Amino acid sequence: MAKNSMNEIVALCKRRGFIFQSSEIYGGINACYDMGPLGVELKKNIKDLWWKHMVQMRPDVEGLDAAILMHPRVWEASGHLEHFSDPMVECKDCHHRFREDNLKKDKCPDCGGELTDPRNFNLMFKTHMGPVEEGATEIYLRPETAQGIYVNYENVRVPARQKLPFGIGQIGKAFRNEITPGNFIFRTREFEQMEMQFFIHEEEEDKWFEYWMDYRINWHKNVIGISSDKLHVVEHPPNKLAHYARRAVDIEYDFPFGQSELEGIHNRGHYDLTRHAEFSGKNLEYFDQAKDEKYIPNIIETSGGIDRTLLALLTDGYEIEEDEQGKERTVLKLHPRIAPVKAGVFPLVKRDGMDELGEKIAADLRKKFNIFYDAGGSIGRRYRRGDEAGFPFAITVDGDSLQDNSVTIRERDTMQQKRVPIDMIEKMIEEFTEGYQRDKGLLSGD
Amino acid sequence: MAKNSMNEIVALCKRRGFIFQSSEIYGGINACYDMGPLGVELKKNIKDLWWKHMVQMRPDVEGLDAAILMHPRVWEASGHLEHFSDPMVECKDCHHRFREDNLKKDKCPDCGGELTDPRNFNLMFKTHMGPVEEGATEIYLRPETAQGIYVNYENVRVPARQKLPFGIGQIGKAFRNEITPGNFIFRTREFEQMEMQFFIHEEEEDKWFEYWMDYRINWHKNVIGISSDKLHVVEHPPNKLAHYARRAVDIEYDFPFGQSELEGIHNRGHYDLTRHAEFSGKNLEYFDQAKDEKYIPNIIETSGGIDRTLLALLTDGYEIEEDEQGKERTVLKLHPRIAPVKAGVFPLVKRDGMDELGEKIAADLRKKFNIFYDAGGSIGRRYRRGDEAGFPFAITVDGDSLQDNSVTIRERDTMQQKRVPIDMIEKMIEEFTEGYQRDKGLLSGD
Repeated sequence: MAKNSMNEIVALCKRRGFIFQSSEIYGGINACYDMGPLGVELKKNIKDLWWKHMVQMRPDVEGLDAAILMHPRVWEASGHLEHFSDPMVECKDCHHRFREDNLKKDKCPDCGGELTDPRNFNLMFKTHMGPVEEGATEIYLRPETAQGIYVNYENVRVPARQKLPFGIGQIGKAFRNEITPGNFIFRTREFEQMEMQFFIHEEEEDKWFEYWMDYRINWHKNVIGISSDKLHVVEHPPNKLAHYARRAVDIEYDFPFGQSELEGIHNRGHYDLTRHAEFSGKNLEYFDQAKDEKYIPNIIETSGGIDRTLLALLTDGYEIEEDEQGKERTVLKLHPRIAPVKAGVFPLVKRDGMDELGEKIAADLRKKFNIFYDAGGSIGRRYRRGDEAGFPFAITVDGDSLQDNSVTIRERDTMQQKRVPIDMIEKMIEEFTEGYQRDKGLLSGD
Repeated sequence: MAKNSMNEIVALCKRRGFIFQSSEIYGGINACYDMGPLGVELKKNIKDLWWKHMVQMRPDVEGLDAAILMHPRVWEASGHLEHFSDPMVECKDCHHRFREDNLKKDKCPDCGGELTDPRNFNLMFKTHMGPVEEGATEIYLRPETAQGIYVNYENVRVPARQKLPFGIGQIGKAFRNEITPGNFIFRTREFEQMEMQFFIHEEEEDKWFEYWMDYRINWHKNVIGISSDKLHVVEHPPNKLAHYARRAVDIEYDFPFGQSELEGIHNRGHYDLTRHAEFSGKNLEYFDQAKDEKYIPNIIETSGGIDRTLLALLTDGYEIEEDEQGKERTVLKLHPRIAPVKAGVFPLVKRDGMDELGEKIAADLRKKFNIFYDAGGSIGRRYRRGDEAGFPFAITVDGDSLQDNSVTIRERDTMQQKRVPIDMIEKMIEEFTEGYQRDKGLLSGD
């Protein structure tokens, strides 16, 4: 896909109600985005499918939702106060700012001017808690969700009656005052993470690292349906690892702007719990009764960005091809499991009871699925809008529907149409969702 | 329920993994809380049921998820920069701080000392966006989610092809630097709201106010199952209304610390869109084609606190009564629709294949429900733990289960037990959930 297709995707997101720039009527706020009616449902589907496969279905993983505002000592223990900064340089002429480590030469990339010496800029947003600024506590918006898991390790393990190995999963927002955010929702200052920290004995680090790497790749491919050939596993060379890390692998996707990270799998050693034990004075050792052994657990982490996963899905599904009349159509081939709306319900025309029947069908289906009902304009244009919003099905109510209790169902990828009894629609959507293969309609087969 | 029962509920929340103080190992951070494995599921159920009934099932409501960080002009337009403050006084002796409007006399309630004159303290958390503090933009953590809806009104309405009346629903976090937070998770500095803003013609304001008030009360009673006799509707007297408000009603609950607000229904007039039109310079009028009429829509708002709804559910479900052996038991009578775990699966003893069968039953049920598996300790203690964590069912696998493919199911409220074939468990949980009536077991009837 060409690099400029990003502009088309951004335009589609606005036009169909996936994503808007935050505070757009005020000119926007840089690197923050709002999810519209379709974006919020798409994001919810990603989160729900992560939670189902990472928490609900796993006897060995517990859920957590820690606060964004944490005790400032957390960021001393984690090393963020000391290390979570980027080297920033400023052009002495145009005053644009850059991350020095991203620059290829030592002149300003915008105007060729001379750059200042780099200074370390901490990426955490700072604020004050307590009733007056002068007497208040300086606190930070969390730059990652992981620390909320580490500090709650014992709080969770004990009531959940878990023994090692076990994990804690969490979905939540994090904030980074990035020097150079960009690529739409890929790198933003407010974003959402889905993270799981798996606590293990050091001896099992290789086994669990491989296990979770495979499990996460499988999720991206087979649960949410990202194209296999655009996903890559990239091993970090040992000399590029964070100081505490023993091994790190990225799951990357071929974005229009280049191959970039969706999720990281990290062997963090016992750094995190050792540091929190030290800084808090609490004993965070695990006692293995069977082996009569005490130790600080090691951690294998799976840390994914929800917004960039959403962007990968949009990019991956986006295609331009010909419609039934040979005209260009934009289609968003999202897996029906992840599609924000499962079907559009369209009365052919807004009379003779077709609209009432359409409304009734929509109302029934809404108990289970997100449904888009639209009775206005030409049916062709309603199909087009549904295609580019990723609706797997268009359900058309016509004059015959009132007699034969059937509707015409058009499938998004193949544009095949089929007559289906109204009381079979729900079952058909469910079966199609489970058996979906991109570009292979299920409607013609049976 | 006695006032000191709050302490019991706080202890239960820690013990069973519902709620922990944020950053507890560092002594905690005031008025922020973390949701543990059961808390996160309970909260998720509240949010999912709100979304289903307020967005998914409604043809006239669209979803949104706006960023927490917004353009600072938003808070000028909304009036928050000017008005969102509390009058704060400080004791000259002990330096404790209080909201002046909450004090009953003019001496310090803690030590009797003299108080300072009140000063206005703005409750918004302030931070800086952009790479250096001196050149950065001063921004705020949103103190309410509503403004994210107003600024996106046109962004949402157009792609959703909505005509008035229609609404926009949103769930998200908000932050208030409260002077006197308290009552556990009732008033916190970081909290989550579920809000719906319904855009209407002024003529219909009374009709829609009544409609949404009834709809929301019904949701609290019949969807999430809060006791009717503890819910109250309280009308704000006209002289207590916010300057823009035309009518306001609170839905309140009988907490152990007194009757307090869960949700507000507000007629906000056309204040919000008028102000944003004025401050942004954008035309936010609605054009009604059929009537050939242009106007700024009025807004009816339903604004609920998720954390306080969660606290109401915990308080409402909490009971101490006698168990099968006449001993005291703590039981959390949550509606099974809202219960964080639907069943505990307990092999009677951990041998003779009972644990393997128990694990298999748990794994099958986990595809649909949250399940807690526990094979250790006396069965009586496992029942007790499940009761106070609100599990509607305990499923016990015994020696006979391997022969007759059946298990013993014990129902939480009545403690009745029944033998049920393994392949009927899923259906039984679903039917029981729909037909649940507190304290009336379904197991004995058929």
